[in-house]
Amino acid sequence: MRDGMTYAPKGRPQPVVKPGVFKIAAIGLDHGHIYGMCNGLIEAGAELKWVYDADPVKVRAFQKEFPGAQEARSRDEVLADPEVKLVAGAAIPSERCALGLAVIDAGKDYFTDKGPFTTLAQLELARAKVAETNGKYMVYYSERLHVESAVFAGQLIEEGAIGRVLHVAGFGPHRLNAPARPAWFFQKERYGGIIADIGTHQVEQFLYYTGAKDAQVLHGVVANYNHPEYPELEDFGAAALLGDNGATGYFRVDWFTPDALPTWGDGRVLITGADGYIELRKYIDVARETTTDHVYLVNHEGMHHFHVAGKVGFPFFGQLILDCLNRTETAMTQAHAFKAAEIALKAQAIALKV
Amino acid sequence: MRDGMTYAPKGRPQPVVKPGVFKIAAIGLDHGHIYGMCNGLIEAGAELKWVYDADPVKVRAFQKEFPGAQEARSRDEVLADPEVKLVAGAAIPSERCALGLAVIDAGKDYFTDKGPFTTLAQLELARAKVAETNGKYMVYYSERLHVESAVFAGQLIEEGAIGRVLHVAGFGPHRLNAPARPAWFFQKERYGGIIADIGTHQVEQFLYYTGAKDAQVLHGVVANYNHPEYPELEDFGAAALLGDNGATGYFRVDWFTPDALPTWGDGRVLITGADGYIELRKYIDVARETTTDHVYLVNHEGMHHFHVAGKVGFPFFGQLILDCLNRTETAMTQAHAFKAAEIALKAQAIALKV
Repeated sequence: MRDGMTYAPKGRPQPVVKPGVFKIAAIGLDHGHIYGMCNGLIEAGAELKWVYDADPVKVRAFQKEFPGAQEARSRDEVLADPEVKLVAGAAIPSERCALGLAVIDAGKDYFTDKGPFTTLAQLELARAKVAETNGKYMVYYSERLHVESAVFAGQLIEEGAIGRVLHVAGFGPHRLNAPARPAWFFQKERYGGIIADIGTHQVEQFLYYTGAKDAQVLHGVVANYNHPEYPELEDFGAAALLGDNGATGYFRVDWFTPDALPTWGDGRVLITGADGYIELRKYIDVARETTTDHVYLVNHEGMHHFHVAGKVGFPFFGQLILDCLNRTETAMTQAHAFKAAEIALKAQAIALKV
Repeated sequence: MRDGMTYAPKGRPQPVVKPGVFKIAAIGLDHGHIYGMCNGLIEAGAELKWVYDADPVKVRAFQKEFPGAQEARSRDEVLADPEVKLVAGAAIPSERCALGLAVIDAGKDYFTDKGPFTTLAQLELARAKVAETNGKYMVYYSERLHVESAVFAGQLIEEGAIGRVLHVAGFGPHRLNAPARPAWFFQKERYGGIIADIGTHQVEQFLYYTGAKDAQVLHGVVANYNHPEYPELEDFGAAALLGDNGATGYFRVDWFTPDALPTWGDGRVLITGADGYIELRKYIDVARETTTDHVYLVNHEGMHHFHVAGKVGFPFFGQLILDCLNRTETAMTQAHAFKAAEIALKAQAIALKV
């Protein structure tokens, strides 16, 4: 697996549309997630027509991976192309909303890297824009959507394998890799804070696995524990949630993946149900197996270890394409995508700095 | 391993005193932890002279395990025996303090099962008594003291294996086994609440691993999610802590161990340091190995899995005996034992009922 910065899981191509039916473009290559976003959509049948970024070096690298993508001369050239149905973007977090508003104003759907916003004011603008236009502002919550074990956990819960979900604990350690990071990564106003950034994955998983439609933030914490050379970096964040259905949750996100871990982070999710529990070891089964996607399930009937890498796929992308074509919400509702961001932004805002 | 109710780990006998030098008694057999408490002390060289409980059935069962223990006719017969240096007790939680005050008033040290108190008022009485007499009110925080992986984690941290400890997440699921539980187990006033009870283990581990001397409770939650037939049972509890040294932590305790788990609970501790992390899989390595005491360590130098069952021992008990004889505090300071209880009681008191 690549570093988290250019995390681009490969699945089996399972096109949901014929070639050329769903054309997309990539605008904003600031975060390497753009590779995973485009790859997921292409595997589901999308055709990547354009790429645009102000930095030609990023465009060249991107075209190596996606040779079919033509470089546009400007963002507006892409937005003016009526063939483009959806624009995928991984701009600097603080600029993601402005890009999305322009994309939707151009009559296209928008698919942005997480965190989709750095302020609640941006979120309100996006909500208003979507309400006004019926455009989509979808979010690449990759730590669930592009992780087969995380998809499988959703299927297990749906099947009732652990009964009512009571609690979700998520751990999202990431490798800092500071020398490879751009300047904005260390500027709070631009990256938005650790909870608004990588915490959004965690909130999204809490809402998804518990089925809550909303949640209160019971507490939040952020810290710069060990990186005084980057005073605006938050290297640690945590928050506790109470869902509107009574489920509770907690997450910890951090930039403390140690050097000897052979992947970018030992991401885990522990899901406690009334009748069993699930543990996800998403990117490694630490000191056991370096493969991804290990799922542990214990309920009243049995105790299981499932290694699901390559067995589940990533249904989100095909569903998103069909949602865009059919104006449905099977991949993810707009309300859910926004709510996860809203809760993360609120947790970020109230977080105690320790 | 036995059920959690009579959890009595066996170690290698490593006496720190000659036979007969350190005589102890057991008073209060309400919780099966008394077996582990006495066994730990006996392996460290204590001689178990007396046992007393109002229930002769409990005394008979206890004497089967500890045939050398003579049944006393009353609590006072034990307290009047000048040979007895320490009384171990696992009374009903709400009665643990009163027993302890009587033990200390009789000039002996007290070693109680956790939670050591069900109210902050009891804690204040015990603090005053200890200050007045210099007696010891020690607590069987078994989930660290009597778990080799947990002891080993302390040694790793002491050696600097993960650098400064930033965060401790503890998970203490327990099997409910309701039909085998006594009436008091379901009476809030007597068991004290889930955080004051099994949450004390978690708070103690937070303080120990982080080295914090005190902690704020950032939030607490308790719930009866799935046992309406026991209205006073809390089947779930959680809290977040902020140590006085800036470390943070979270724990979840519950009575949701599913039937198919071959032990009483999949207890875990995840310890995040500035230079690595440790995971403890204390009682099972779920769906991998049914043995206890699996320790995972990743730092900048390597990634390791240690299976430490039978290799570490339980130094607490010998240290406690020597502390009683020498009036030292090597096993655990009184301040630490009380502080863990205090924080748990505060978390219990402020916990949101969901």
